[in-house]
Amino acid sequence: MQQHVSVITLGIDDLPRSRRFYAEGFGWTPVFDNDEIVFYQMNGFILGTWLQHALEGDMQRSGLVRPGAFALAHNVGTKKEVQPLIDRLAAAGGDVLRPGDAPVHGGFRGYVADPDGHAWEIAWNPSFAMDEHGHITFGL
Amino acid sequence: MQQHVSVITLGIDDLPRSRRFYAEGFGWTPVFDNDEIVFYQMNGFILGTWLQHALEGDMQRSGLVRPGAFALAHNVGTKKEVQPLIDRLAAAGGDVLRPGDAPVHGGFRGYVADPDGHAWEIAWNPSFAMDEHGHITFGL
Repeated sequence: MQQHVSVITLGIDDLPRSRRFYAEGFGWTPVFDNDEIVFYQMNGFILGTWLQHALEGDMQRSGLVRPGAFALAHNVGTKKEVQPLIDRLAAAGGDVLRPGDAPVHGGFRGYVADPDGHAWEIAWNPSFAMDEHGHITFGL
Repeated sequence: MQQHVSVITLGIDDLPRSRRFYAEGFGWTPVFDNDEIVFYQMNGFILGTWLQHALEGDMQRSGLVRPGAFALAHNVGTKKEVQPLIDRLAAAGGDVLRPGDAPVHGGFRGYVADPDGHAWEIAWNPSFAMDEHGHITFGL
């Protein structure tokens, strides 16, 4: 069985507020949008931000809660890129959960919540090789 | 700014229970594990399943809740693969949220929650092109 994820969908409350975080904070451009969802083409999969009631309807599961027990990480190429990106995400409507610092396993990272509370780790991790397309290969 | 996610980390309560779902249900092999985390190499990024208290500690944010407002999708190549995979995930400790059926936008999909409540959509989506590495490119 192939080890792959095709789509990550985040439940959100307000499309323009969320879109500002991803567009102005990360600098990402949607590949599609309508009045309930925005899709971003990522490294081999799609990130979707979808109105939470629509996601709940599709999943046939109501009562999704936030902050959920998960985190998404966006790795950068150098240590010095971590904190400026955290600052830019905060200026675009994010909440800083943890400013950049060095974890015991090496590298440098911090956490920011998007306007809907979804956590993003911004990390420089020299032990995870990243190619020119942003693809990560595990290494320790 | 590159549009990429490097790691998806799911907060879990019980490592063997979670690992059984991913190993026996999806058929995935860890690339690393210790007594608090399991990593799986995915299509260009890493999936981590980490004891929730450790994730909360790293994030400096307590009180993460489940089921979170998000879903991960795993696409398969044909419609007829959807329901058998849902059944296999259920047999490996998952809870079926929605059996496979056809959404209005086409294709075929269902949802299963992993043993920690994290939702996986199992989908056949002929409008999202998938290459031999499982990489998805957006299309409608």
